[in-house]
Amino acid sequence: MAKEASVTPWEVKGNIDYDRLVKEFGVSRIDENLLKRIKKQAGTLHHMLRRNIFFAHRDLKWILDEYDKGNRFFLYTGRAPSGHVHLGHLVPWMFTKWLQDVYGVELWFQFPDEEKFLFKESMTLADTEHFTRENAYDVIALGFDPKKTHFLIDTKHAGVMYKEALKVAKKITFSTAKAAFGFRPEQNIGAIFYTAMQAVPAFLPSVLAGKKIPCLIPHAIDQDPHFRVSRDVITKIGHYKPASIQCRFLPGLGGMSTDGKMSASEAETAVYTTDSPETVRKKIMKYAFSGGQATVEEHRKKGGNPDVDVSYQWLTFFEEDDRKLKKIYDDYSSGKMLTGELKQILVDKLNSFLKEHQKKREKAKDKYEDFIFKEP
Amino acid sequence: MAKEASVTPWEVKGNIDYDRLVKEFGVSRIDENLLKRIKKQAGTLHHMLRRNIFFAHRDLKWILDEYDKGNRFFLYTGRAPSGHVHLGHLVPWMFTKWLQDVYGVELWFQFPDEEKFLFKESMTLADTEHFTRENAYDVIALGFDPKKTHFLIDTKHAGVMYKEALKVAKKITFSTAKAAFGFRPEQNIGAIFYTAMQAVPAFLPSVLAGKKIPCLIPHAIDQDPHFRVSRDVITKIGHYKPASIQCRFLPGLGGMSTDGKMSASEAETAVYTTDSPETVRKKIMKYAFSGGQATVEEHRKKGGNPDVDVSYQWLTFFEEDDRKLKKIYDDYSSGKMLTGELKQILVDKLNSFLKEHQKKREKAKDKYEDFIFKEP
Repeated sequence: MAKEASVTPWEVKGNIDYDRLVKEFGVSRIDENLLKRIKKQAGTLHHMLRRNIFFAHRDLKWILDEYDKGNRFFLYTGRAPSGHVHLGHLVPWMFTKWLQDVYGVELWFQFPDEEKFLFKESMTLADTEHFTRENAYDVIALGFDPKKTHFLIDTKHAGVMYKEALKVAKKITFSTAKAAFGFRPEQNIGAIFYTAMQAVPAFLPSVLAGKKIPCLIPHAIDQDPHFRVSRDVITKIGHYKPASIQCRFLPGLGGMSTDGKMSASEAETAVYTTDSPETVRKKIMKYAFSGGQATVEEHRKKGGNPDVDVSYQWLTFFEEDDRKLKKIYDDYSSGKMLTGELKQILVDKLNSFLKEHQKKREKAKDKYEDFIFKEP
Repeated sequence: MAKEASVTPWEVKGNIDYDRLVKEFGVSRIDENLLKRIKKQAGTLHHMLRRNIFFAHRDLKWILDEYDKGNRFFLYTGRAPSGHVHLGHLVPWMFTKWLQDVYGVELWFQFPDEEKFLFKESMTLADTEHFTRENAYDVIALGFDPKKTHFLIDTKHAGVMYKEALKVAKKITFSTAKAAFGFRPEQNIGAIFYTAMQAVPAFLPSVLAGKKIPCLIPHAIDQDPHFRVSRDVITKIGHYKPASIQCRFLPGLGGMSTDGKMSASEAETAVYTTDSPETVRKKIMKYAFSGGQATVEEHRKKGGNPDVDVSYQWLTFFEEDDRKLKKIYDDYSSGKMLTGELKQILVDKLNSFLKEHQKKREKAKDKYEDFIFKEP
């Protein structure tokens, strides 16, 4: 049975209807025209754009217009540290890395290390400090340019961030925050304030530069309520309204109808960046929801359903080659490819990626300090 | 007509019934026994204690007990910068200075420069930055020991304060804050968070020292709701529950039944530390509510009422000599002293004090940096 869908910055569950989210959140679909323009500017089109994984936006046209006028944007994305990074977390970051490369722009990467502390009873600041570092290694491993990438850690950089957050906070009423986030009376006062801190990286580079710089925020769709609340406020305090580009979630292993978004707190639905090849193989083989038929005979006759098959869906995120992907789709649909074979393709793909990632992640430990924003 | 009394950290108005406040806020009266103990430890008793101007407390006995055991406390008080300092502001600071001198203890003085920004629509952070400096000159002019006094400015020291404030904030629900401060749905989310920042100096010295140090907070009674909310929370995060000692308000010139507390925003009810001798004279002569009779004849016959006379009341705050004060009381009550003569005594007292204060305030401008807390 599909659970009732719920998408907030603190919880994503159930079978997600992205059309409904677009309408409810008030974001726009990325259309052919926008894709053409990006391809023209970037020279290429990332497979997550080609495949509609990054599917929605706010004010993206304006960002591209400004870019054409020579007014470069900066990128802002982030990670609220609370546990180990899984493949779902990597999705917007890999795309952000591509944007940094093709547009040659600065990236401000926020680690709001207070968020999960404020929203999860058992989480301590020592925990989030530990995971900030662990998670940062994964970010660095993706190959961001250290000269153009600045890590902002809320408790570490509060010296510059708190003052800016106050300007945002003054213009957000409790009513507004409650409507966007569904706060209850027992919510703690830090959690209520927090969204103001999440708004800061969208304009801090402008404050530091002393001039308005356009901001583009790539993020998974569940974070949209934060920016919905702060976008207008940011213009009221003298900065450009940040633009954003939203992706769908990498589904959990249990399948799209139950695990709409991979959850870091449920180890059996997620593959972590630090999982061994054997662990990856076991998880996929054992837990990845299959679109195949009950028996080999039936599968050969009727074919599998790649649209609900988690292994296939994951390949749409991680297999960049459209032709390879198309062949897998066709072979699986026709029954020529069995579920075990499809799973093996995914296992090989992920283990090959993770082998490299884990090497780079080790090397990242020496580069950590280079990425931390140094206050002027 | 007496206005209905209201005492919150953001507003004090009307004729204040201190007995009712003691009951409502749940503080304790300072009794003879406590006064004796302070006199024994300090060697003397400040006139604001002798005259019941500092009249209430929380856990003061514990602070004195710890002191006797050799466990010294530190002092914490502050000023939310939003305008020029008037004589009413000086009252708790002068008493705090005395405590620092006689007990030889450290003082942490907070300038929560975001508070008035968050609670007053028209106030900018540039305004509060300006007034932080202006107000700090007044604090320094009172003669605090620069080696034992540390100014904490919230936006400047957020690098150390925000993280500590989060620990407090996590344990205060919106319900609790609403009950203590009367927040409404249109309150901004910064204002709701703010009380967590006001709690920080009560335990930051313990965090920095890596050991629990008792804290005593001298403050005007209207600030009590902040500490009522945070006291229990502070013990939950591993520190001593801060003790406090509360003073009455210096009444505004209009008299106790209307101006329960001197207001910085109503220039005609307040005397500022930067007022010229002539301005002080004019304000007192023109506006100070008189307890005298309608005519000289009547006054000579019936005598004045020092208990409602603002000039006399102010002298109880600023004339340290009990015998002089007693004589003024007797002479005014008997009708021997006229209102004009009483006012002149106050004018002379204030102008003599302010002449020295203004000199020291000028010199304070060079000492400002010495008082700012330097992060380790």
